[in-house]
Amino acid sequence: MEVRDVLIIGGSMAGRTAAVAARNHYREVGIAIIRPQEKEQVMVPCGLPYIFGTLGAVEKNVTPDAMVFDRGIELIVDQAISIDRAAKTVTTANGNMIGYRKLILATGSVPVIPPIPGRDLKNAFSAVKDIHYLNNLLAQLKKVKHITIIGGGFIGVEFADEFRKRGLQVTIIEILPHCLQLVFSEDFCALAEQRIRARGINLMTGTRVKAILGEIEVERLELDSGESIDTDMVLFGVGVLPNVELALKAGLTIGEIGAIQVDEYGRTSDEDIFAIGDCSEKVSYFTKKPSTLRLSSVAAREGRIAGANLFGLKRRNEGVIGSFATVIDDLGLGSVGLTEKAAGDAGYKVVTGESRTRDKHPGTMPGSSEIRMRLVFDKANGEILGAELSGGPTVADITNTLAALIQVRMKADEVVTYQYGVHPALTSAPSTHPIPNAAEDALAKW
Amino acid sequence: MEVRDVLIIGGSMAGRTAAVAARNHYREVGIAIIRPQEKEQVMVPCGLPYIFGTLGAVEKNVTPDAMVFDRGIELIVDQAISIDRAAKTVTTANGNMIGYRKLILATGSVPVIPPIPGRDLKNAFSAVKDIHYLNNLLAQLKKVKHITIIGGGFIGVEFADEFRKRGLQVTIIEILPHCLQLVFSEDFCALAEQRIRARGINLMTGTRVKAILGEIEVERLELDSGESIDTDMVLFGVGVLPNVELALKAGLTIGEIGAIQVDEYGRTSDEDIFAIGDCSEKVSYFTKKPSTLRLSSVAAREGRIAGANLFGLKRRNEGVIGSFATVIDDLGLGSVGLTEKAAGDAGYKVVTGESRTRDKHPGTMPGSSEIRMRLVFDKANGEILGAELSGGPTVADITNTLAALIQVRMKADEVVTYQYGVHPALTSAPSTHPIPNAAEDALAKW
Repeated sequence: MEVRDVLIIGGSMAGRTAAVAARNHYREVGIAIIRPQEKEQVMVPCGLPYIFGTLGAVEKNVTPDAMVFDRGIELIVDQAISIDRAAKTVTTANGNMIGYRKLILATGSVPVIPPIPGRDLKNAFSAVKDIHYLNNLLAQLKKVKHITIIGGGFIGVEFADEFRKRGLQVTIIEILPHCLQLVFSEDFCALAEQRIRARGINLMTGTRVKAILGEIEVERLELDSGESIDTDMVLFGVGVLPNVELALKAGLTIGEIGAIQVDEYGRTSDEDIFAIGDCSEKVSYFTKKPSTLRLSSVAAREGRIAGANLFGLKRRNEGVIGSFATVIDDLGLGSVGLTEKAAGDAGYKVVTGESRTRDKHPGTMPGSSEIRMRLVFDKANGEILGAELSGGPTVADITNTLAALIQVRMKADEVVTYQYGVHPALTSAPSTHPIPNAAEDALAKW
Repeated sequence: MEVRDVLIIGGSMAGRTAAVAARNHYREVGIAIIRPQEKEQVMVPCGLPYIFGTLGAVEKNVTPDAMVFDRGIELIVDQAISIDRAAKTVTTANGNMIGYRKLILATGSVPVIPPIPGRDLKNAFSAVKDIHYLNNLLAQLKKVKHITIIGGGFIGVEFADEFRKRGLQVTIIEILPHCLQLVFSEDFCALAEQRIRARGINLMTGTRVKAILGEIEVERLELDSGESIDTDMVLFGVGVLPNVELALKAGLTIGEIGAIQVDEYGRTSDEDIFAIGDCSEKVSYFTKKPSTLRLSSVAAREGRIAGANLFGLKRRNEGVIGSFATVIDDLGLGSVGLTEKAAGDAGYKVVTGESRTRDKHPGTMPGSSEIRMRLVFDKANGEILGAELSGGPTVADITNTLAALIQVRMKADEVVTYQYGVHPALTSAPSTHPIPNAAEDALAKW
């Protein structure tokens, strides 16, 4: 039996990033990724919606493998089916047994399919990160006119916008009062909804699907209201759950929200086994309580932490802040850390500050967008806890600047003198920069 | 004689931002700005080059005044000509005398005109922030075919790119071996130069103008090499010097590099007089030595500091980091803090890290640009000292994220686990994000 120094189960964002980090930190060890996909067959997770509009082909959404496997990392195309922790071996679907010194579980997540009658009908899909599944979805899509997306979170809204680019009729059904409600305050949700509707998408919020009806294929949806909608296809976009099957069978501890429990170094209850990405438990940066945040950026970060910690603890994970961005038509939206409501729910007393400006200057520069920003500060000590904003194509990087300020727990009176730079074609004006001005607005209300 | 609680001399970025900050912090005081320009006549300083291509009209580059003067701030259209510090009064060109409790000098800078024979010929211009001067430049520009820019820094390069948008023949003459050399390393300068030349600009580096020749108007340039160039117009873009005339006459201390000396609160040698923006001395965030950085973003920040400190010291200025961005054609360039060379000159031993990726993901997303990044770390303690990068339209905001990391003195092993977010249409991929990956590259070389 061959033994690998480092065996990684799963080759998506978490697994591949861990492999590269392990290679950077441990030059001489043998590192292998075991995954069912051949080379150039792994999907970019956040790219899924873009296959169906902007990209137009599943193959354009492939994660390039060369940057991993050109670095002396082995690919084992197979499926891990069990772990023997005492023997430190993994058994595969092909009947092989592979030994490990350190094992990393990066088994990801599976889409949630809500228990709605009719969910197994043909033409009911979900966002499965599989090249064959997605090619089938794309093929079926060519035959339909009206698709209904169940779930108005990021994935649902992004799929809807992309389906519109194909000219499809699109309905979104969201059970909560607003789209994107888990991450944005009501006013930003309203901005998003306005833009979704302006794109010609039929958006139904506060609405529940009672049943999916049809003979073989999806034909109609029955809503709680008694109303019904004719539709040719359904896409579930209601979130994902950690894929913990292997870990569970191996007797690793599963945390209270159903993910593999790990310590701040990424170690499971077995100290030779790490778990990262969607399958592992995250805790909130703020409350240290388990968090349901599952993001590819978080997965990659956990890969960088675990990969470095394999043979000596070097990096700690102090919990997830959560930095989100999306774009609907050309409206960029970003959110990071705690909204005012989330901060209140977590027990903080907060002060908020707001600003509005343009993302180029002077405002007469062509192609400029309005930026609206809200910052949330801890009233007790002045630390920035969160931000949400709308704008143009720079909104994700502004959100990331705010993520940095949050991560270092910058206080409002430091945020107001944060040392940004400006350029007419690229940023807001020096005097109206949204970050210091929103902080100043908060300080005036303290 | 009327006395203002707060009198601000100068109404550009520094002055207007200080006025607003003062209003935010001191609700009841009387605040006045004295400046020669009527309302809606002040130019956006960094917007100057864009008048001549993208915007097409001087009036489109006006700084909106409503956001200042709608907040109970008075505008006095006049020119301050002297300060009586004992009497705490300012005398104006119109013969008025205005008292103050606190005075803020925001008198800005004036373009440097190098002592080249012929510099006073008609059609030799510089980047003067005056609406009438610029309208004359624009009018004259309509009559010329070939313009030569003396100086290949940001302002020179940006003017050149914009003049090309009008279809003019453009030559840049830079005395140093490279364009933008004061802010970028050679490889990034080379990227810029490649793009400048691809724009059809005749770029001559390591070249000095010996004389400007002509009868009444500019006709020809004589170079040190003996070569000569026919040209119809000259634009000087060789930097600015602090405008300290009023301060000097009033006996305020002028620092060793010719700017008004101020303490970390923005106070001059007279504690009732503050100085901010291009006219005041800055110190480096790193070395605490005087810095020649003069940026509108720095001016605005100093306004926010001085405005808050007028009647009680609240905010400290720990020195300038310097965050720069520009765009040549569609190549974005950013630089912040110390380059490898600047850090070496300041006595640091450094470790650098590099990364390359795309600014969208997958790389097949339309309109994506390559990002190249170099980070510079202090070898002794791991702190990030600087960064330079090239990319697309998000380059300024990525530079600003790095500015935040530098400002909080983040260490390399924290930078590598910095909590960014991602989106296919807006950012790099989770696994290839340039910031953590450049930090990881540096850590591997430590």
